[in-house]
Amino acid sequence: MVEEVGAALVIIGNEVLSGRTQDANIQYIALGLNEVGIRLKEVRVIADDPAAIIATINALRATYTYVFTTGGIGPTHDDITSECIAAAFGVPLLRDPRAVERLLLQIKPENLNEARLRMANIPQGAALIDNPVSHAPGFVLSNVYVMAGVPRIMQAMFDGIRHGLKGGARMLSKSVTIFAGEGVIATGLAALQNRYPALEIGSYPFTRDGGYGTVIVVRGTDAAMIAAAAVEVAELAASQDAQTEDDGQPPR
Amino acid sequence: MVEEVGAALVIIGNEVLSGRTQDANIQYIALGLNEVGIRLKEVRVIADDPAAIIATINALRATYTYVFTTGGIGPTHDDITSECIAAAFGVPLLRDPRAVERLLLQIKPENLNEARLRMANIPQGAALIDNPVSHAPGFVLSNVYVMAGVPRIMQAMFDGIRHGLKGGARMLSKSVTIFAGEGVIATGLAALQNRYPALEIGSYPFTRDGGYGTVIVVRGTDAAMIAAAAVEVAELAASQDAQTEDDGQPPR
Repeated sequence: MVEEVGAALVIIGNEVLSGRTQDANIQYIALGLNEVGIRLKEVRVIADDPAAIIATINALRATYTYVFTTGGIGPTHDDITSECIAAAFGVPLLRDPRAVERLLLQIKPENLNEARLRMANIPQGAALIDNPVSHAPGFVLSNVYVMAGVPRIMQAMFDGIRHGLKGGARMLSKSVTIFAGEGVIATGLAALQNRYPALEIGSYPFTRDGGYGTVIVVRGTDAAMIAAAAVEVAELAASQDAQTEDDGQPPR
Repeated sequence: MVEEVGAALVIIGNEVLSGRTQDANIQYIALGLNEVGIRLKEVRVIADDPAAIIATINALRATYTYVFTTGGIGPTHDDITSECIAAAFGVPLLRDPRAVERLLLQIKPENLNEARLRMANIPQGAALIDNPVSHAPGFVLSNVYVMAGVPRIMQAMFDGIRHGLKGGARMLSKSVTIFAGEGVIATGLAALQNRYPALEIGSYPFTRDGGYGTVIVVRGTDAAMIAAAAVEVAELAASQDAQTEDDGQPPR
């Protein structure tokens, strides 16, 4: 049995909930975690509301190996993530001299006003996360990684930390496209899933040129087993007179 | 005090968590709810896992006026939403003759196999949600609205039900773009937020042509109050020698 390392992502910000902003962070983090053998198990999008942030962080950090947050660490009044993380852990929020130093890489001393200095308020005991884009750091406290919400900055922070995370076996996957509706192969597919309990067989319908199709995604940690199951998926489709198209790749 | 009606959205499916699929449903539902005076307060993305689905549904349906789910109501083995909703409510999952009738609008009787008939398994007591795209229905049980995950089908289902929801006052918003970094106006903006506790003033930084800018979004239910606050945002920027650009629209 291969150890599975699970993670949760918390997207903090009214702008996604109001529909103003299309989320651009879930997929980047999901794919990046997968590459280091960590599985994103849950995502929550919550408002800039202290009670919601504190309760969510405390629930998730007790459940998953890693928790990542994005958003709410800027200089304005609606940036309340850092103080909420401190409250969730029951530690003080302190002006961090290391963080002030980093702010001074970007901001002239005469412009480093009290609002901007809020970005140097870090929960006691946290380590800083580098921000190579605009220097205001993120931080990690225990298993909670706090990052910016702006995708370009989040990505730079995440890329800097993710190879230091301790993952398990990497999830690999392989796709087989079947030119028939899900219902044609559903019964056989359920039987196939039962024969391969160590794999996850997902079925994703699509329509193209008015016809129905289904992408079958086989996921797991054992490349040979995935390849064998993918062959069986194609055989199942053929037995129902459906054309298939292999992605032509080994499981990856 | 205007009554606020809150909702949660649950996106059920391994494909968003694995990064295979970019979510396309949050923003559509957020904007659509806002138009009928309902505020999306929380989104959860969870795996095709019965325990996770049941616990999430039961937590959210007790917390919010409305809960919407997307995904997991197709014919394949990984489509387990309907049985989990039934389990969450403690009611049986029954073959629904009304749903079978709808499936027959799309599927020839000789092709209506046991897998496809699973799409007609509906929790006892639920009302059906129309699916004008492919007929397999969603359903509503108490305050939980269960919809397909494929965006085109979800949108058709959602558009059919949302005007029947009972919303509160509609949230309006107005944007002012400031051509200066957030830190320049953050202190004044916090004071402004304090003077307008009935409004939500959000600050969203951007970079353009190497320069920093900030979009200030003022949200609330009172158009005149929003317009007055937006004028104060522009005055605040001017007092810091920052250019502004009004969206030129009344709050909407």
